[in-house]
Amino acid sequence: MYALRVEKRGLAVRDIDLPERGPEALVRVLLSGICRTDLEIARGYAGFKGTIGHEFVGVVEAAPNDELVGQRVVGEINTGCGECVLCRGGDPRHCPKRTVLGIVGRDGAHAEYLKLPLSNLLAVPETIADEHAVFVEPLAAACGIMERAEITRDKNVAVIGDGKLGLLCAQAISLTGAPVLLIGKHPEKMRIAERRGVETTTVKKGAKRKNEFDVVVEASGSAAAFGVALDLLRPRGVLVLKSTFEGTTEINAARMVVDEISVLGSRCGRFPPALDLLQKGAIDVDSLISEEHPLSSGVLAMERAGKKGMLKVFLRP
Amino acid sequence: MYALRVEKRGLAVRDIDLPERGPEALVRVLLSGICRTDLEIARGYAGFKGTIGHEFVGVVEAAPNDELVGQRVVGEINTGCGECVLCRGGDPRHCPKRTVLGIVGRDGAHAEYLKLPLSNLLAVPETIADEHAVFVEPLAAACGIMERAEITRDKNVAVIGDGKLGLLCAQAISLTGAPVLLIGKHPEKMRIAERRGVETTTVKKGAKRKNEFDVVVEASGSAAAFGVALDLLRPRGVLVLKSTFEGTTEINAARMVVDEISVLGSRCGRFPPALDLLQKGAIDVDSLISEEHPLSSGVLAMERAGKKGMLKVFLRP
Repeated sequence: MYALRVEKRGLAVRDIDLPERGPEALVRVLLSGICRTDLEIARGYAGFKGTIGHEFVGVVEAAPNDELVGQRVVGEINTGCGECVLCRGGDPRHCPKRTVLGIVGRDGAHAEYLKLPLSNLLAVPETIADEHAVFVEPLAAACGIMERAEITRDKNVAVIGDGKLGLLCAQAISLTGAPVLLIGKHPEKMRIAERRGVETTTVKKGAKRKNEFDVVVEASGSAAAFGVALDLLRPRGVLVLKSTFEGTTEINAARMVVDEISVLGSRCGRFPPALDLLQKGAIDVDSLISEEHPLSSGVLAMERAGKKGMLKVFLRP
Repeated sequence: MYALRVEKRGLAVRDIDLPERGPEALVRVLLSGICRTDLEIARGYAGFKGTIGHEFVGVVEAAPNDELVGQRVVGEINTGCGECVLCRGGDPRHCPKRTVLGIVGRDGAHAEYLKLPLSNLLAVPETIADEHAVFVEPLAAACGIMERAEITRDKNVAVIGDGKLGLLCAQAISLTGAPVLLIGKHPEKMRIAERRGVETTTVKKGAKRKNEFDVVVEASGSAAAFGVALDLLRPRGVLVLKSTFEGTTEINAARMVVDEISVLGSRCGRFPPALDLLQKGAIDVDSLISEEHPLSSGVLAMERAGKKGMLKVFLRP
């Protein structure tokens, strides 16, 4: 089968063997989405080598029992050991022995087939199109903010970054009833959020709104945004970090102490609430789709996905 | 009166006018304590010029009413505008217009007299010696950790830093019943915490205990400790920052996101719980006293307070 792989010498589409299912399910990928993390991994982030990709919708071809065979599914990307306290509590996202689809120790979704434990898979209701279902993973990550920070309608929230993740975060948070300001660079992207009731502004104007926000979400992937975010926060405000990127960030720790700021890292979220929002049509994901390429053009597609102004790029096996 | 002042050209003891009381209370200082923050201010932190010092015990000499006159008192260091939401809620610690004794816009406690609003002052029970009462402010700051992070007896806690603040934090947290590991450099200082049931270890050995702690308190004032602290934490662990210092810290933001770490800045705490602990003798502060100097030797005392291995240095007017 074809698969888009990060190798020592770079990115390439290779013809490799089908994954051996073992005790897991074999999934035929219908469509996969390129995430910013894929681009970071191709640049060396997380030190991963193998098939990348973790946003997908597919069909179960084979499984240890018949439960989901033939079903259209999406899949949670973390697979735990199944035995530690975290796994037994039903949340393998931080299992110390976990693998992560296309990120840590497990081949990913930019391929014709992938394997995942049955317990990671969720059936996709018929009313959700493939092109929407692919957004479950990043939308779950956006909804994960509400698992980490208490956001209620009386909180002022700012989201920094008008990329795919920022636009999903702004829309998801807005559904709580809290007023959301999206701070970005691209008027055409910000219009997507505006249509869902989100206020938007430029980085220059946004940076002036100092000490105004209870919660700021950093979704721009820029190291410099950390300082801007601190300035926007009220004393005892909460900064949620969503972006993962290679390298370090300089912070003014004294400022965090004096204003008693909380900085909360936030990674993956649970899939069911995200699937629910997609089914209700509560989130505009159509406007986030930029291009689709065949898997065989994966290297070109990755290049396109890194271009300025680009939103979601799909790969179709 | 004499006062220890940070001036453009450096630190000096000056003979200045008594503070004009206005609507506030005039307090004759009996004893003041030199804090690490005083040393940082003398180096330029917070840009403060004037009389430094914010740890004190004194006697009210004059006030707008007779309530506390003649009483021995300690005083909360933040004074708010009295009108904003925070002040009206009884917590002026983050009032945007606040002054802070000896730190922001208000002459401090290394002086013969100071002034503070009556509402900032708390009477000191007779059974608490002056030398203990001076510790109310830093002990309240240590107790402030429990205002920010949920610490219960089932949490594993590490405190980095065996200076005055670290020793107070370790002792205060230990009273919650949670097991506390103090990571420090000076065996003779760590023995103070050991006598109160705190486990201790060296920086080298402590740094090996990766992913073991639910809560890590950074009280060393070293920028490098941030990275060590992150390594000690379990996924979804909480890092409490207590130290204020000039300059920036480099952090690995991706690590914070992937492990969903919370970093909570923590500054001042409420005085009543700290006063209560001192009255009960629940905290060993005697062992934290290194030296006492007359206020007139304030410059020398500051120099001594900055010496390696030194704990609390007192100034007596």
